[in-house]
Amino acid sequence: METMKTSPIGIFDSGIGGLTVAHAIHKALPKEQLIYFGDTAHLPYGDKSPDSIKYYSIRIAQFLLEHGCKMIVIACNTASAHAYETVKDFVGKRAVVINVIDPLVAAVAKQKKWNKVGVIATKGTVKADSYAKKIKTAAPQIQVSSLATPLLAPMIEEGFFNNKISRTVIGSYLDHKKLQKIDALLLACTHYPLIKEEIMDYYKNNITVLDSAGLVAEAVVKVLRTKKWMRAQSGSHQFYVSDFTPSFQESTKYFFGSKITLHKAAIWK
Amino acid sequence: METMKTSPIGIFDSGIGGLTVAHAIHKALPKEQLIYFGDTAHLPYGDKSPDSIKYYSIRIAQFLLEHGCKMIVIACNTASAHAYETVKDFVGKRAVVINVIDPLVAAVAKQKKWNKVGVIATKGTVKADSYAKKIKTAAPQIQVSSLATPLLAPMIEEGFFNNKISRTVIGSYLDHKKLQKIDALLLACTHYPLIKEEIMDYYKNNITVLDSAGLVAEAVVKVLRTKKWMRAQSGSHQFYVSDFTPSFQESTKYFFGSKITLHKAAIWK
Repeated sequence: METMKTSPIGIFDSGIGGLTVAHAIHKALPKEQLIYFGDTAHLPYGDKSPDSIKYYSIRIAQFLLEHGCKMIVIACNTASAHAYETVKDFVGKRAVVINVIDPLVAAVAKQKKWNKVGVIATKGTVKADSYAKKIKTAAPQIQVSSLATPLLAPMIEEGFFNNKISRTVIGSYLDHKKLQKIDALLLACTHYPLIKEEIMDYYKNNITVLDSAGLVAEAVVKVLRTKKWMRAQSGSHQFYVSDFTPSFQESTKYFFGSKITLHKAAIWK
Repeated sequence: METMKTSPIGIFDSGIGGLTVAHAIHKALPKEQLIYFGDTAHLPYGDKSPDSIKYYSIRIAQFLLEHGCKMIVIACNTASAHAYETVKDFVGKRAVVINVIDPLVAAVAKQKKWNKVGVIATKGTVKADSYAKKIKTAAPQIQVSSLATPLLAPMIEEGFFNNKISRTVIGSYLDHKKLQKIDALLLACTHYPLIKEEIMDYYKNNITVLDSAGLVAEAVVKVLRTKKWMRAQSGSHQFYVSDFTPSFQESTKYFFGSKITLHKAAIWK
């Protein structure tokens, strides 16, 4: 369809963490128009039940479809773990749906020398166990060990990184016995790219630390290229949240790299 | 009204932190039946807009009224700051509404030797500035200095207290220049009683550290005694949440002192 070329790319997350993914897509495809939705009324998804996450995700997908999106990127690991199949089924042929887990799993599966990878994520993502299940299928020789690190996302959101507190919290989690003797660590939460360097410092660069932002952007490029849906002229992005506070507005600069303007879309009332 | 004697006391919070208040009321009035509602679907309130908090609070008050509550205790500082007047107006004569701020303000106003008190709370509570405004009216000679400490509630919820991480985080907040030369520190979040001892250790018991749980329970006792609404025979408590996860269930023991059973009440669908 010719109209798909000019249609925007929809991206959603429980909050503003998914802006790290939006930023990676923006860098890879500067001409694409992005429509971002952060469900700040229900943030964080890491503590919510699978049923609630499915319900929220479908409603948000509907919002993005109403805005004419040709693609929906689930830029949240917990929603990708619990609601990807549901959203894909709901969206059908109206748009392509991409999650943040599969590109990371594909990158891991290419590695022939790895024996064990660690995964750090929210409680919801760890409970869904998607990384272990998907890696088991794609690369059965690799052992996966996942640890819930629920304090990292609020810590980053509050601007605590590159300081004594973040070093103590990060060290306390990474010392865990589940994460010993790993060849790589997967950062399975869209907030974690902001502490990637601190994590690499902890390991003194002895292991590979992977996050999904860049890999998801590559996956988006691949789909658009295959389908010939690339946009020729640049359009302006739109950023929505389900509940607006000045503090979210203020934090966007950490996640998107530059300050952006959030608009409220009250889809829950 | 004679029926009021046997009616339950409703208590609500954004999550399970308000169980510290429920527990204090249970200790003070063991025969009263409590109906607790934790709005875990929207937790935490500290990041939500005032409009959203008002909307959520009224719907929860309606739920508690439908359960025949004679009293509604807003066991959440952010909701007390933003939604107390709205809830009181909505409830009218159907029940007595109590918030967690006024009992603490009354306790401060009794102190004749204090010059400056510090307040630590969520961003929402600090922004509403209720403690400063109310203390200014009740005890204009006392200066109030408030600091948002948004990482403390998630830290406590994840079970991080009485350890190296909590000491570092608490110390980093309490070192803030806003909290220097204070005579007392008010713990203006229902989670904070769980770190009260660590905070007192930080100050080496040189200042007074006040939380609201016990003071709110005293206020409840006073109202019931005045209105002659005390219950004669004990009834069993009910604990509801708007979204259920095993991790909330697990954490209840920290906040209520003993493990309780949470039931889901899907009031948002």
